[in-house]
Amino acid sequence: MSEEVKQSWSMADISAKAVTKRMAIAGGRIIIGAKAMKMLQAGTLPKGDPRAMAEVVGIQAAKLTPALLPLCHPIALNRVMLRSILRPEQQAIDIYCMAEIAAKTGVEMEALTGVQVALLTVWDLIKPVEPALEITDVRLLYKSGGKSGVWENPQGLPTEIDKWVKELDAGSSPA
Amino acid sequence: MSEEVKQSWSMADISAKAVTKRMAIAGGRIIIGAKAMKMLQAGTLPKGDPRAMAEVVGIQAAKLTPALLPLCHPIALNRVMLRSILRPEQQAIDIYCMAEIAAKTGVEMEALTGVQVALLTVWDLIKPVEPALEITDVRLLYKSGGKSGVWENPQGLPTEIDKWVKELDAGSSPA
Amino acid sequence: MSEEVKQSWSMADISAKAVTKRMAIAGGRIIIGAKAMKMLQAGTLPKGDPRAMAEVVGIQAAKLTPALLPLCHPIALNRVMLRSILRPEQQAIDIYCMAEIAAKTGVEMEALTGVQVALLTVWDLIKPVEPALEITDVRLLYKSGGKSGVWENPQGLPTEIDKWVKELDAGSSPA
Amino acid sequence: MSEEVKQSWSMADISAKAVTKRMAIAGGRIIIGAKAMKMLQAGTLPKGDPRAMAEVVGIQAAKLTPALLPLCHPIALNRVMLRSILRPEQQAIDIYCMAEIAAKTGVEMEALTGVQVALLTVWDLIKPVEPALEITDVRLLYKSGGKSGVWENPQGLPTEIDKWVKELDAGSSPA
Amino acid sequence: MSEEVKQSWSMADISAKAVTKRMAIAGGRIIIGAKAMKMLQAGTLPKGDPRAMAEVVGIQAAKLTPALLPLCHPIALNRVMLRSILRPEQQAIDIYCMAEIAAKTGVEMEALTGVQVALLTVWDLIKPVEPALEITDVRLLYKSGGKSGVWENPQGLPTEIDKWVKELDAGSSPA
Amino acid sequence: MSEEVKQSWSMADISAKAVTKRMAIAGGRIIIGAKAMKMLQAGTLPKGDPRAMAEVVGIQAAKLTPALLPLCHPIALNRVMLRSILRPEQQAIDIYCMAEIAAKTGVEMEALTGVQVALLTVWDLIKPVEPALEITDVRLLYKSGGKSGVWENPQGLPTEIDKWVKELDAGSSPA
Repeated sequence: MSEEVKQSWSMADISAKAVTKRMAIAGGRIIIGAKAMKMLQAGTLPKGDPRAMAEVVGIQAAKLTPALLPLCHPIALNRVMLRSILRPEQQAIDIYCMAEIAAKTGVEMEALTGVQVALLTVWDLIKPVEPALEITDVRLLYKSGGKSGVWENPQGLPTEIDKWVKELDAGSSPA
Repeated sequence: MSEEVKQSWSMADISAKAVTKRMAIAGGRIIIGAKAMKMLQAGTLPKGDPRAMAEVVGIQAAKLTPALLPLCHPIALNRVMLRSILRPEQQAIDIYCMAEIAAKTGVEMEALTGVQVALLTVWDLIKPVEPALEITDVRLLYKSGGKSGVWENPQGLPTEIDKWVKELDAGSSPA
Repeated sequence: MSEEVKQSWSMADISAKAVTKRMAIAGGRIIIGAKAMKMLQAGTLPKGDPRAMAEVVGIQAAKLTPALLPLCHPIALNRVMLRSILRPEQQAIDIYCMAEIAAKTGVEMEALTGVQVALLTVWDLIKPVEPALEITDVRLLYKSGGKSGVWENPQGLPTEIDKWVKELDAGSSPA
Repeated sequence: MSEEVKQSWSMADISAKAVTKRMAIAGGRIIIGAKAMKMLQAGTLPKGDPRAMAEVVGIQAAKLTPALLPLCHPIALNRVMLRSILRPEQQAIDIYCMAEIAAKTGVEMEALTGVQVALLTVWDLIKPVEPALEITDVRLLYKSGGKSGVWENPQGLPTEIDKWVKELDAGSSPA
Repeated sequence: MSEEVKQSWSMADISAKAVTKRMAIAGGRIIIGAKAMKMLQAGTLPKGDPRAMAEVVGIQAAKLTPALLPLCHPIALNRVMLRSILRPEQQAIDIYCMAEIAAKTGVEMEALTGVQVALLTVWDLIKPVEPALEITDVRLLYKSGGKSGVWENPQGLPTEIDKWVKELDAGSSPA
Repeated sequence: MSEEVKQSWSMADISAKAVTKRMAIAGGRIIIGAKAMKMLQAGTLPKGDPRAMAEVVGIQAAKLTPALLPLCHPIALNRVMLRSILRPEQQAIDIYCMAEIAAKTGVEMEALTGVQVALLTVWDLIKPVEPALEITDVRLLYKSGGKSGVWENPQGLPTEIDKWVKELDAGSSPA
């Protein structure tokens, strides 16, 4: 009986793809409210600065992507970088993660995993002063390399990220 | 010189807290668009069913929380469960994660980590047919136990989650 | 005194080997008894479907091989796939794992690790209804690539696996 | 539509179970053939002694069980020990793993995981001289503690394991 | 033949020990040279600030101890904290790690693992400007709790650590 | 306000570097005292032989380096080997780790991580008989490959390591 053979999922076969330089940038937002924003700016959050910790954690998480997501290929990332931007008017912190590789497969999931776990780190450090946090606007913003070339999110890139992409293209060092 | 001693972060000291049964439910949404929703409902997504895989991955991620987030305490979870709900009108999948423990510290971060990584799994399985996905509305919905007792998100609970909380309170077995 | 210098193990030196496409398929069986087989076929096992979960877990375990086995090289797998086959007459489930790479070293251990941990997953989900389970017949079935070329287990391949090898050789997509 | 809410698996709810001392012993066999058995006994295997390495790896794998198997609870093992027995007449190595805990849930899966991954380690160190290996007879042999008390595999215990159980009951130190 | 049964290592049996509050502080030094010390103080190291990153990494490493060291029991740490002290006259950075638990077994290895991996992080960030680094003076400095009570390293405690112990005893919050 | 964009650390961009064979050897010492040295030599340490276990653990730790250290690139090591040398006159054990790769980035941190975690393993097995242990002299001893070619520690190499480097250069098999 054919039903007795079962396979539910398929990892993409990348053996025939070309090794090219591939890059992806993802971003996401955590809304932290007025009180936490004030404490963050004043450096008085009880557990310490969430942005520096989130940067470290996001880098490590991006490298862990194939251990977390079953259909992601183990890959040797060239570089991972995280940047965060305070948005006081929106009472929010935006986190961006850039991942880069020379490989047969893309790095969108690595960039997104860096963002998602970095946002969790911010949550963990802010929750003692504000339980009603919210993560939103997690998107792939930009990718380059591979067969499809450059792709930009139809909603456009924030100014700072547009500038970052240009820096990266020019090979200038970050920050 | 006092500046030469440096410690930037502090893990909460939980030694004086009481061991109580604590529970948390978090939720989040991924907007997948009309095309992917149709393929999901028809079972024709090329990499396989994202919802079943996301459930397995979310359980494993919730258990990994202290390995991912530096200030989270290693804890012995009693139970982790994930539920997903199709929202065809919103072209979205909602993912909910419940974590439960008898301990001195809460399980919000475990429930949120389960949601965040489960949402990434859905993303990974849907991206071959739709690159412009979006994760949004990631929130803590409910928690109970500990000194502060029951807390509900000020925005209220979705009907299905309200029902789930009642099932869990009654000790009835899930689904 | 020469005894004072100690080295007990040696990782194989693969630096002089050629990068070739290499593939391996391993298989193994878990005997679950009449009662559990009936519940599995009826979909009434209390913890849920063991075959779908075993597939996810086996993929993740295959990728974890170098973290589990000290002398295995970290490698970038191209693809891992698991298939399970119900054998009602033998009251058994057979699990097969295929691993594929372009590298200087083979992927037998990856395929075997996928099988071994997938079998443990089935055990975990069936043990509430049957404690006297048994894992048996774990074998390398097939490998290709590298200096030694194609190797088939002297006991031969099950019909379904012979067919799978032909599909894979033809580059046809699985299942 | 009720079909739109999906939960496929359930982790056992252990919150109402009693904390008791629980112990489990699992065992399994790898058949290595005449040639490898001779080399093993002569200490001439090219990668080194598989039994000592398998012991270390099995201990680490048993502790990793909740990271490998989704429905296993994170638990704080009191003790894990592995023993291996040469069976020259069967051209085999038998591996046994004992896991012990004071908890609300059993440790069968931890003992079995220790055995399964230790057997893979032996495989990895013997495969350069023999590709046609076989793992077989992986069974839970003994468990004690919890509501169901002492359970022995219906096929009985090997002499050495029967003796080990008595040592452990007497609290005598191992080996 | 008795030689055929083999067990080389024994995890300590902690089942009969009392659950008490246990604490340990370990410390170690990395000598970085004049040039790197100047760049560190000026904030001009090319990869960024090693001390803040080492703090995050040390916390995560301390929690990973049972995954790294085979005979260490999985334990639920109450708290881990790292402090670093600049020693410009010695051209060195000292790293200290405090680990705390309520359990049947001590936390010396957790504190030491935090120190060892934090020191590696400093190494990684300083090596672009100085390859001839050196790690030295890694010691257990202080432990309390358990049957043996308070223990201090015979070489005494640095002033800052003596003060830290008093703060911790008084339950005052760190830093 | 420019302060609102924050990035504290930068992973080195290795995309323009050449793939070359790269090798590194690191070493370190643990001082164990007269009593433990005697027990080690007599094989009477209560937890078992620290040197064989340290070798296994050091290999696994070297492979874990990118998971432990945020700015280390994930790489596919060709080989990792550990050697230990008893130094009875210094009441010490010296541990050496060699790591080898064909890649765009070096393997110093991998060799050092192997040494640091192997030394922790020795500590864990000796601490029941001696709490006042000390780790010291952890250094990079030798590296080759990449743009800078061969580098030797200015303090020179121990005789045994000088000999090991020559063996490795000659391609002779270890031990």
